[in-house]
Amino acid sequence: MPARGPVVVGIDIGGTKTAAAVVRPDGSLAHRAETPTPAQAGPQIVLDTAAALVATIAERTGITPDAFGVGSAGAFDEHGVVVHSTDHLAGWSGTDVAGGLRSRLGAPVVVVNDVHAAATGERTTSGLERFLFVAVGTGIGGAVVADGMVLLGASGMAGSVGHVRIPSARHRVCSCGGADHVEAFASGPGIELTYAEFTGRARDLRSIGRLAAEGDVIAAQVIRVAAEDLGESLASAVVTVDPGTVLLGGGVSGLGALFIDPLAERLRASLRPPFADVRVAAARSGPDAALIGAGRLAFESLPATEADGSPARS
Amino acid sequence: MPARGPVVVGIDIGGTKTAAAVVRPDGSLAHRAETPTPAQAGPQIVLDTAAALVATIAERTGITPDAFGVGSAGAFDEHGVVVHSTDHLAGWSGTDVAGGLRSRLGAPVVVVNDVHAAATGERTTSGLERFLFVAVGTGIGGAVVADGMVLLGASGMAGSVGHVRIPSARHRVCSCGGADHVEAFASGPGIELTYAEFTGRARDLRSIGRLAAEGDVIAAQVIRVAAEDLGESLASAVVTVDPGTVLLGGGVSGLGALFIDPLAERLRASLRPPFADVRVAAARSGPDAALIGAGRLAFESLPATEADGSPARS
Repeated sequence: MPARGPVVVGIDIGGTKTAAAVVRPDGSLAHRAETPTPAQAGPQIVLDTAAALVATIAERTGITPDAFGVGSAGAFDEHGVVVHSTDHLAGWSGTDVAGGLRSRLGAPVVVVNDVHAAATGERTTSGLERFLFVAVGTGIGGAVVADGMVLLGASGMAGSVGHVRIPSARHRVCSCGGADHVEAFASGPGIELTYAEFTGRARDLRSIGRLAAEGDVIAAQVIRVAAEDLGESLASAVVTVDPGTVLLGGGVSGLGALFIDPLAERLRASLRPPFADVRVAAARSGPDAALIGAGRLAFESLPATEADGSPARS
Repeated sequence: MPARGPVVVGIDIGGTKTAAAVVRPDGSLAHRAETPTPAQAGPQIVLDTAAALVATIAERTGITPDAFGVGSAGAFDEHGVVVHSTDHLAGWSGTDVAGGLRSRLGAPVVVVNDVHAAATGERTTSGLERFLFVAVGTGIGGAVVADGMVLLGASGMAGSVGHVRIPSARHRVCSCGGADHVEAFASGPGIELTYAEFTGRARDLRSIGRLAAEGDVIAAQVIRVAAEDLGESLASAVVTVDPGTVLLGGGVSGLGALFIDPLAERLRASLRPPFADVRVAAARSGPDAALIGAGRLAFESLPATEADGSPARS
């Protein structure tokens, strides 16, 4: 028999897709569903789409969620309003995501930045109370976890470790407009661009990774240089927050040892005691980290007696 | 009539001098005393000296402290044992500072890194709950304050923003052994070395500052370059912790606008929204920041009913 406890749904609103699932207290997911995000249709349509996705799950399963946790692109204030956003979601800045979803869903909603949500998911999965989370994908984001809490920051954007300038003569403009930020070199698009520069051939990250794994020297070197650039640039984040552990998530980290080993080697070589023995490891929550973390935050927003209930396994 | 409350003494054990004072809940000091630190005589003599200084204050004033707070060079574990230290205090690594002083003083003792203590002092003085504190003096240290708490870090050394490599062709070795860390350029000794390189003349920081204030172009430029190096290198700390405010303490920051203005300008120019409007200001607690903060931590270590008592003004 399943133990009874609050039912929580996590929602991940990304620039490409919106996903939702029932999140159990142990971080496992059930009834996961996803749908394309109408990113250019305006914020109200984006919220309608998320609410419709939840309605689909509720209808299919008969559940009545007690709370919702949302991870989404952008920086949020403590009320769940977007205070800063890039153009991935048109008109997203200023949107009251928490209020808009609360009125559509009829239950409490907590909203955080999607990378902060993913770090919370990783905290749930790993059991670690202190680490630096770095998500290397289309962009490079991050989160600082200390004493089990994700550091929010004055602008809601703590952990933005991709927007650090690296000493490069290559003059690339970052997605944020900055010059020579590490994101422009070590993100998926950054690696694809470097590969194209060296070979004249356009290949996606997955192909470059496959080529490297098969022994292609240029593909392997392109990945290595990107990893070393990021490893060196993370040294400043490590001395600033002294996290003890760096967990690497996102699609680029999915390249595995090809990416993670040179990153770790260069990071450690860039540090002195007591920082030089920082642990570097792959994140374990996978692409659903933000869903898991958003659900976890919803549990934590509930009164303590409910949140402490036994995991509802079925 | 003074309100009765717990009596707390702050102790600052530095490489040069040891200071102690009664710290009031509002951060003001009374009965301050100091004595040279016997830095090369071994840790037990250093602790004896601190205890003797406290005994002098107690004898002179008739107070019986309820708790002690200590700020000292080095990284500490949660028990107040030194886990990492430079050579400023001989044999300091491994010393049980909290236990050694507790047995000498007969009351509870909390111990933290001196820069973490100074940041706590600055929190008390400024009332700010979130900022990055940077102490620019003989070295460059720092502390991350979020939600009113100083981030300790896995090694007890969070906030070590001086140990970030800057893109320099000047190849200086940092006090920590690292190459081209910003501390080697923007600390007091770093500025003195740069001045000597440009002029062939050895002058101390105070003289260089005076020359710059009087219009000496080389002195002003040496200070400006140091400030800009530090400003640019702090950009990575700002995107990592998103502090909203950077407070500059230490003797070099005492140069005032000569140092702080170009630092702030370069820092902001190195950042993109939402970080670029970070506030930069001089710390206000002065050289006794660590004493004030150590006392504040001692208050916070007392049972809540006592720590919440009315400020004991006399």
